Amino acid sequence: MNRVCELLGIRYPIIQAGMVWCSGWELASAVSNAGGLGIIGAGSMYPDILKHHIQKTKASTSHHFAVNLPLLYPDINQHVETIIKEKVPIVFTSAGNPAIWTKILKAEGIKVIHVIANSKFALKAVEAGVDAVVAEGFEAGGHNGKEETTTLCLIPKIVDTVDIPVIAAGGISSGKSMLAAFALGAQAVQIGSRFAASEESSAHPSFKQKIIEAKEGSTKLSMKAITPVRLLENDFAHQVFEAEQQGLGKEKLIELLGKGRAKRGMFEGDLINGELEIGQVAANFHQILPAKQIVEEIWTEFMQEKDKLTNLNF
Amino acid sequence: MNRVCELLGIRYPIIQAGMVWCSGWELASAVSNAGGLGIIGAGSMYPDILKHHIQKTKASTSHHFAVNLPLLYPDINQHVETIIKEKVPIVFTSAGNPAIWTKILKAEGIKVIHVIANSKFALKAVEAGVDAVVAEGFEAGGHNGKEETTTLCLIPKIVDTVDIPVIAAGGISSGKSMLAAFALGAQAVQIGSRFAASEESSAHPSFKQKIIEAKEGSTKLSMKAITPVRLLENDFAHQVFEAEQQGLGKEKLIELLGKGRAKRGMFEGDLINGELEIGQVAANFHQILPAKQIVEEIWTEFMQEKDKLTNLNF
Repeated sequence: MNRVCELLGIRYPIIQAGMVWCSGWELASAVSNAGGLGIIGAGSMYPDILKHHIQKTKASTSHHFAVNLPLLYPDINQHVETIIKEKVPIVFTSAGNPAIWTKILKAEGIKVIHVIANSKFALKAVEAGVDAVVAEGFEAGGHNGKEETTTLCLIPKIVDTVDIPVIAAGGISSGKSMLAAFALGAQAVQIGSRFAASEESSAHPSFKQKIIEAKEGSTKLSMKAITPVRLLENDFAHQVFEAEQQGLGKEKLIELLGKGRAKRGMFEGDLINGELEIGQVAANFHQILPAKQIVEEIWTEFMQEKDKLTNLNF
Repeated sequence: MNRVCELLGIRYPIIQAGMVWCSGWELASAVSNAGGLGIIGAGSMYPDILKHHIQKTKASTSHHFAVNLPLLYPDINQHVETIIKEKVPIVFTSAGNPAIWTKILKAEGIKVIHVIANSKFALKAVEAGVDAVVAEGFEAGGHNGKEETTTLCLIPKIVDTVDIPVIAAGGISSGKSMLAAFALGAQAVQIGSRFAASEESSAHPSFKQKIIEAKEGSTKLSMKAITPVRLLENDFAHQVFEAEQQGLGKEKLIELLGKGRAKRGMFEGDLINGELEIGQVAANFHQILPAKQIVEEIWTEFMQEKDKLTNLNF
């Protein structure tokens, strides 16, 4: 049996990424009900909102689900308390040092998976005692590693570095790309962009439409002077690109970013001045579909392409 | 049978990239003798040098080989004349518009493969009448596309866009990564970095050593204001990164680059002031081996990993 399916108690090794402003209880429960793992993105939620989403997810699915917890979240103590009190079975941690929180969560019987983008942090995650890592490449949407290592280069490196299961993320939206990740030694995939544009995503409908219209070159890794983040181009993003090309530093970027831009763009649908985060792979799909259909299409294609690969003649 | 093997008359769908300062007759003939396709990199050769390398390759192998021809090469007429006169069976064209030269080469019975990094240029290559395309992702060494599309995102896109065979390039150095490329629909792989560090490569021994010591984050796509190129970090590269961070434009970069830097770095072994071009995947291998052993290791691992993938249970 697949190690990640066994670890997480799921049917298919397909994980929906926890994403700010996109992945609430509707998406998480739909993915878990479809046989994958749904994740609530806690990074954009106040503690009481997170509690509400966890409770709604539990009411909507009998399957396992997870919460994504950015470790730099200001109210992290409250988030962790909620997660423990509500008996969330799995937590994906990201953006921070897993050393402290892994122990606390695991003591409660919670499975912990940490997101990394290089082998140094993969080893730190192992040391912290996590059950698996998500290895996320340069093509991924949102926050990203400084080394700019692509999924194709990153996965074999991490698989060679750690003994725990590796979940591939970045650039995956289809059965074919899932199969490529498995060819590299991953034991599951984490998919963000395609689910951000699903029917159950809490992203604004205008943002979903813009995601499926994305083309090659429509996203760009930006804000490297602060924290690298992949942006979908719009007026705001072009201001950022311009400022970076002119060599304007951290302070100017922080000023440009201001507050609440991500909510404004992704949740409220301000496609001009909002911050829109999405992966490069948005150029590769063009439909807003129910999450269940996405899981099933990916799984079916994965199995079909695996057979095709098997039957290749040389 | 594999379409690329059939098209090019080779045993294994493993192509050694034509690279400036690294791939002369010794490397090309060794790869062709090992059952792959060896390519002479004409971009760093004067017309009489190219002629010499073609003749030496012909004397050293009875198998097919190719010449890589950057279409912006100043003496391109002379290069094409040499290629035709010496009856080179296959030409890989890059860095330029294939419209004119494809027709001329094909009229002589030469197979033409063009290197692209987006679907727009893939369609232009099909229109020009090429036999196959090399789709090269962001992680590749040397010159690179403006869209920064990674191999994982690029290959399925190009496979969906054209009917001719697609050869994957960028981030490939092993049987596992080759298998990932096939999972994405590629019918062959083109490998640069690993052969740049092979025994038969004409790269300077110090450069080869530096390649195999590369780590995650050691290379960076730079010079975007001129033509994007992936550099291995050294003093020169850091000057470039610094200039770019300060927002110094095209003119400053051209001045910094000066003349003959690539030769100085890669061929003459000036690791401080020379320009060193290599792919991100250099972080994933650590030995200088004979080309034959590289071809065999990759092929053996490819077949083994294909079997493993087949036998996965869910």
